[in-house]
Amino acid sequence: MSEQKGFKPVPGAIDAPEIGVGMLGYAFMGRAHSNAFKKLPYMMFPPPAIPKLVALCGRDEKAVATAAHQFGYQGYYTDWRDMLADDNIQMFDNGGPNDTHAAPCILAAQAGKHVFCEKPLARTAEEAKGMLDAVQRANVKHMVAFNYRFVPAVRQAYELIRSGALGEIYHFRAMYLQDWLIPSAGTPWLWRMNKEVAGTGAIGDLASHIIDLGRFLVGAEIKTVGARTRTFVSERRKADGSGMGRVDVDDAFAAVIEFENGVLGTLEGSRFATGRKNYNVIEINGEKGSIHWNLERLNELEVLWVDDDPKETVGFHTTNITEGHHPWIAHWWPPGHIIGWEHTFVHEIAHFLDCIVNGKDVAPWGADFVDGYRGAVVADAIVESARTGQQIDCSYD
Amino acid sequence: MSEQKGFKPVPGAIDAPEIGVGMLGYAFMGRAHSNAFKKLPYMMFPPPAIPKLVALCGRDEKAVATAAHQFGYQGYYTDWRDMLADDNIQMFDNGGPNDTHAAPCILAAQAGKHVFCEKPLARTAEEAKGMLDAVQRANVKHMVAFNYRFVPAVRQAYELIRSGALGEIYHFRAMYLQDWLIPSAGTPWLWRMNKEVAGTGAIGDLASHIIDLGRFLVGAEIKTVGARTRTFVSERRKADGSGMGRVDVDDAFAAVIEFENGVLGTLEGSRFATGRKNYNVIEINGEKGSIHWNLERLNELEVLWVDDDPKETVGFHTTNITEGHHPWIAHWWPPGHIIGWEHTFVHEIAHFLDCIVNGKDVAPWGADFVDGYRGAVVADAIVESARTGQQIDCSYD
Amino acid sequence: MSEQKGFKPVPGAIDAPEIGVGMLGYAFMGRAHSNAFKKLPYMMFPPPAIPKLVALCGRDEKAVATAAHQFGYQGYYTDWRDMLADDNIQMFDNGGPNDTHAAPCILAAQAGKHVFCEKPLARTAEEAKGMLDAVQRANVKHMVAFNYRFVPAVRQAYELIRSGALGEIYHFRAMYLQDWLIPSAGTPWLWRMNKEVAGTGAIGDLASHIIDLGRFLVGAEIKTVGARTRTFVSERRKADGSGMGRVDVDDAFAAVIEFENGVLGTLEGSRFATGRKNYNVIEINGEKGSIHWNLERLNELEVLWVDDDPKETVGFHTTNITEGHHPWIAHWWPPGHIIGWEHTFVHEIAHFLDCIVNGKDVAPWGADFVDGYRGAVVADAIVESARTGQQIDCSYD
Amino acid sequence: MSEQKGFKPVPGAIDAPEIGVGMLGYAFMGRAHSNAFKKLPYMMFPPPAIPKLVALCGRDEKAVATAAHQFGYQGYYTDWRDMLADDNIQMFDNGGPNDTHAAPCILAAQAGKHVFCEKPLARTAEEAKGMLDAVQRANVKHMVAFNYRFVPAVRQAYELIRSGALGEIYHFRAMYLQDWLIPSAGTPWLWRMNKEVAGTGAIGDLASHIIDLGRFLVGAEIKTVGARTRTFVSERRKADGSGMGRVDVDDAFAAVIEFENGVLGTLEGSRFATGRKNYNVIEINGEKGSIHWNLERLNELEVLWVDDDPKETVGFHTTNITEGHHPWIAHWWPPGHIIGWEHTFVHEIAHFLDCIVNGKDVAPWGADFVDGYRGAVVADAIVESARTGQQIDCSYD
Repeated sequence: MSEQKGFKPVPGAIDAPEIGVGMLGYAFMGRAHSNAFKKLPYMMFPPPAIPKLVALCGRDEKAVATAAHQFGYQGYYTDWRDMLADDNIQMFDNGGPNDTHAAPCILAAQAGKHVFCEKPLARTAEEAKGMLDAVQRANVKHMVAFNYRFVPAVRQAYELIRSGALGEIYHFRAMYLQDWLIPSAGTPWLWRMNKEVAGTGAIGDLASHIIDLGRFLVGAEIKTVGARTRTFVSERRKADGSGMGRVDVDDAFAAVIEFENGVLGTLEGSRFATGRKNYNVIEINGEKGSIHWNLERLNELEVLWVDDDPKETVGFHTTNITEGHHPWIAHWWPPGHIIGWEHTFVHEIAHFLDCIVNGKDVAPWGADFVDGYRGAVVADAIVESARTGQQIDCSYD
Repeated sequence: MSEQKGFKPVPGAIDAPEIGVGMLGYAFMGRAHSNAFKKLPYMMFPPPAIPKLVALCGRDEKAVATAAHQFGYQGYYTDWRDMLADDNIQMFDNGGPNDTHAAPCILAAQAGKHVFCEKPLARTAEEAKGMLDAVQRANVKHMVAFNYRFVPAVRQAYELIRSGALGEIYHFRAMYLQDWLIPSAGTPWLWRMNKEVAGTGAIGDLASHIIDLGRFLVGAEIKTVGARTRTFVSERRKADGSGMGRVDVDDAFAAVIEFENGVLGTLEGSRFATGRKNYNVIEINGEKGSIHWNLERLNELEVLWVDDDPKETVGFHTTNITEGHHPWIAHWWPPGHIIGWEHTFVHEIAHFLDCIVNGKDVAPWGADFVDGYRGAVVADAIVESARTGQQIDCSYD
Repeated sequence: MSEQKGFKPVPGAIDAPEIGVGMLGYAFMGRAHSNAFKKLPYMMFPPPAIPKLVALCGRDEKAVATAAHQFGYQGYYTDWRDMLADDNIQMFDNGGPNDTHAAPCILAAQAGKHVFCEKPLARTAEEAKGMLDAVQRANVKHMVAFNYRFVPAVRQAYELIRSGALGEIYHFRAMYLQDWLIPSAGTPWLWRMNKEVAGTGAIGDLASHIIDLGRFLVGAEIKTVGARTRTFVSERRKADGSGMGRVDVDDAFAAVIEFENGVLGTLEGSRFATGRKNYNVIEINGEKGSIHWNLERLNELEVLWVDDDPKETVGFHTTNITEGHHPWIAHWWPPGHIIGWEHTFVHEIAHFLDCIVNGKDVAPWGADFVDGYRGAVVADAIVESARTGQQIDCSYD
Repeated sequence: MSEQKGFKPVPGAIDAPEIGVGMLGYAFMGRAHSNAFKKLPYMMFPPPAIPKLVALCGRDEKAVATAAHQFGYQGYYTDWRDMLADDNIQMFDNGGPNDTHAAPCILAAQAGKHVFCEKPLARTAEEAKGMLDAVQRANVKHMVAFNYRFVPAVRQAYELIRSGALGEIYHFRAMYLQDWLIPSAGTPWLWRMNKEVAGTGAIGDLASHIIDLGRFLVGAEIKTVGARTRTFVSERRKADGSGMGRVDVDDAFAAVIEFENGVLGTLEGSRFATGRKNYNVIEINGEKGSIHWNLERLNELEVLWVDDDPKETVGFHTTNITEGHHPWIAHWWPPGHIIGWEHTFVHEIAHFLDCIVNGKDVAPWGADFVDGYRGAVVADAIVESARTGQQIDCSYD
């Protein structure tokens, strides 16, 4: 450290409790969560807690070691059972494939660790129920990484709806469209196409998000589901040259739903929506106004007020959700300086740390395992309706 | 006429056959069709035929007389049976309420008149079948006024899809949203809310359009339908002060469909989509590209090509469908000078006249009564699926 | 006429005064004006007057005869001097090239005919001044066809600004971009590139429109102009194969202006703005709000209010100017049914007829020759500033 | 560190050279740069160097100490002269007000430190020239923080233009609009309104960015400038209650420019563009295509190709610049996951570190002090043209 004239050192540590983190998975979600852990102490300042990156876990030792080094974890494990026995870890972050959600989360809870799990919570509602029971029994904090609740525009929409500004809600309309499975994309067979590992395809991956946004924004449970699914390509070449893999999950689904409060809804998701990359679009129509949002323009919220004055200019407002009075924005930049997709995790994990340290509830702003379970019930209903051709009544025990 | 030096008279009539027109209905559709009859002779020049506006028909004598005068009809009738006996009329244009579609169209066909009928063709598939049988038996030309087939952007989309440019089609996604029934609109009870007269609500009014666009663009029949409907407000004040009227049709519907060729589709329509006025939006995703269109910006077509070169700029093209090489535009204005909603009828009626005069088929560019009937089968399936909670297989006899 | 049972004839003529029209020019503007003459009697019902299409005038006898026949004129002239001596004509509509604006308009005024002239009024301010003097001396009605004042969205913007809703105005920003002269368009040499005939290039054709919209919307005269022009291609092949023609007008211009009330403005126009077809975009920023408009989406008006409530949703409203309470829309269709570019002329000519028949002033809603002259002063200043490299103070005698 | 079974530690440091950083300024830019320093080692992996946050510098001791602590600097200085004598610092980052750019940067260069300076480089071209001379004489790396060169969409545009894909360029059109000085914003007097400190107003703050983007994208120097400026409010209340402060800089400017290669351009900037927050919009029209970009939707690039195939769908492509083949995106997330404004600094500082460590040139991808100086010449010309009413020829010595 400098001993130069005029130099005054500052304490090396920010004054906040440390929470030891053990992270399972180092790919897309591992990177996104790790970035958030590193960023929130100085951007969500003063932070509720400082995440201490104790260990990263993955099966491929070389890859996990490299990632642990890159993101500044102290070390790594290749077996999550070992990691979950580590007393330096208070928070378990599960970013593994869907078939590694249940067992590690349950073991983590039993070990008294707070659990943050990527979506979908589980491959089925039954599996999710077991996880919910475990975290409730262990009395640890639990959260599902439905990060779009932590987009400022979505939270702003939530606040507007909850304030009654839209009046009675009539419609919820959601689609989540991607195109990475169309033939020209050349995508090989992946675990995401394998029912054993993934549970479902677009349903678990995409429907889970928009089901959660529907429940969050509409503020009611989904009562009935009528759905149809399609698998456009039923086998794909494996990347390792070992032949063809069978696709036994859905490439796309479409569903008509009704919420308990009578709101009529639509849900659609696809991996074959050519040209759409991350096109998660939500629209809500209410008695006094409407809201429209698109993840690819996540800093904007389109809002219409029926009784806008003057009536000559009633129309959808394209609002830049980038001002200090919008959710979280005071932590970021001046108006018009947009934030990125990754920032949702900064907000989300800051919330979870706040819940851990200060004993707050994850819900309603974050999705806890109750939400994760209820979403899984709806996902199961989509599968069942598509299989039987009948509308399914959702039952939440 | 002038006798001034240098003045040279021109023949008063354009050299094309005259077709005598009898029009039932003088409100919204009566105005729109009448405008097209008057405009096509000089804008679709040289016209296939000249519509001669023989008579307008309506029950309210004062109103029909005023409208007939305004639009230049020779006269009017207050009973369509009388009008259909008039030998000066070769083409019957039915713009009346849904319960006056079947009987007048059938009588017109029996009288040897060509029949142009507003959508939906009928209140039920059965009723539509009777109309189809009548026009086929009478061997007259028949067309349903699905005018959105005659939007240049829609016809351009059709040509692109039919050329194979999109490859295999995966998804058809359509919504038609309006908001004239939300409470603040103050809309009184109308015939459109009465099952006896209208048959259905948003289904007949809005679904009929997007079912037809789906069949037209996808080029296949709809095989199965799963749907749900909602009536948000079940009675409304009558405009004449005579108390409340019962709303026994749907205010909104949502449906998941599958076409015979495996295309997965969604259909949604509502009169409670706050802030949406005439928001008919279609998206089609295919193997090699996608197409997106919005009636409120009807001169634009968004198109994406997967193999666009260079790949760095693959994205949805916002194409102004206003150039001479686009459908019908050579009849209108130079690039960038947009046309309006009303122009669809100019194109449509010009096509019907061409079919009458030159013995051409209305289909595939226009919708004939076969199309009207098949659309009605799908509409019936929406009603039935919503009633039973089961997916319905469409049967076209 | 029918003698069928139940048939009741209506009077053939609408009860409104007839105004005999003589039109010079049968190309783009001739078609657009003729369409409006034919359409306004039934769409702007009840019309202030009925245009009687007496004669069309053009130098190419075959072409003018065909057009006169197509649009239903009684006859045609090949010499405008002859036409202007015709007593059946009360209104002269000048849709000829720029070098045929002054002499025919002056003669028409001297003959006591009301004069409607296409823009730009003249090739120079001096020429415009002569025309203004003539119509004022003759005490006839006079109007320049700045038809964008008659776009419902523009008129709505005018009403909002005039009401004070925007408060003090800071900025006026206008561009009018086209691309028909880029090399790949293959456009041959035309009269529009010849200074002798056209006066200027993009300045007269495009700047004239946005100068007029600036004066109309800002409500003040332009005080100073600093400008630059470019001619990217200086000679072009003639269409008749007779060699190359010299382009001695501007292909593009850009100008910085200040209005008398201190509003800072920009004007830009080009025929080399690749991909832009009719991209006339206006933005006005005021103390309390802003307005944005684009001719290619002419049915929309984007408006922002600073003190919108709640502040969380302040943003540009995309307003569909298609409701009955918007200017002229009650004459057209229900909300969301857009009108086209051509409809501006229907509104404009209806206004001129109203002024003629009912002795009203053309200004401020329409542009009269005073406006045409003042616009020409600004156009001259653009030319002069570009020539000298100095800002020019506009002088309106 | 954990001693748990299975735990394997990783080296605490990433294997890359360390560069000691001394940062002047802890407000908006201090935060943005500090975030980038912390983020680039793991997101731009493997990083060219690891920034070691040695010291932050500011006059307000309490504030600078807090910020240094928050962002993890080892310590702080309250006098930049002291900081620039610190041998632990190899790179000086100047994020102070405009009047603290020249002297500290020159001293840093003399001390052999690499210099990264916020824009505008200086208050005048003369001041900038002195800085340029100093860094060249000292042979240190130098860069001006024109971070919009490091937006992926802007760099993609640069690559397309440089490849010749647009052919000859005709137009460059740029605006940078904000509204934080309109009365309702309630902004008090700040150093940014004081000529002594800021040099100019919107010119230095906003024009500097779009001048730089123009030079970068067009690839030529600006030859002539004709401009006008406005100060709408000439004095403002001071925040400390000490009365009114005089605004002696421009609130807004507009300019017409021509580049040395004949491209006609416009530049406009304002702090009074009501409703516009960070509306930096660029359009370039070339012989074979056009490019349009908006900072508020910075992940999108609109591109039109004249010879697109098929011609029926020529139009502006809305390209999501979020795919692995787009600049820098491989370091971030999968397609459709947008990045934020702050990421520009991550790219920019990674480039500067690469230049320092690997002896590369800052230009042409980054802006060096030559670019900073040339931009200042254009800014001076805007001031001078507005003062004199004459077009100014730019002279770059």
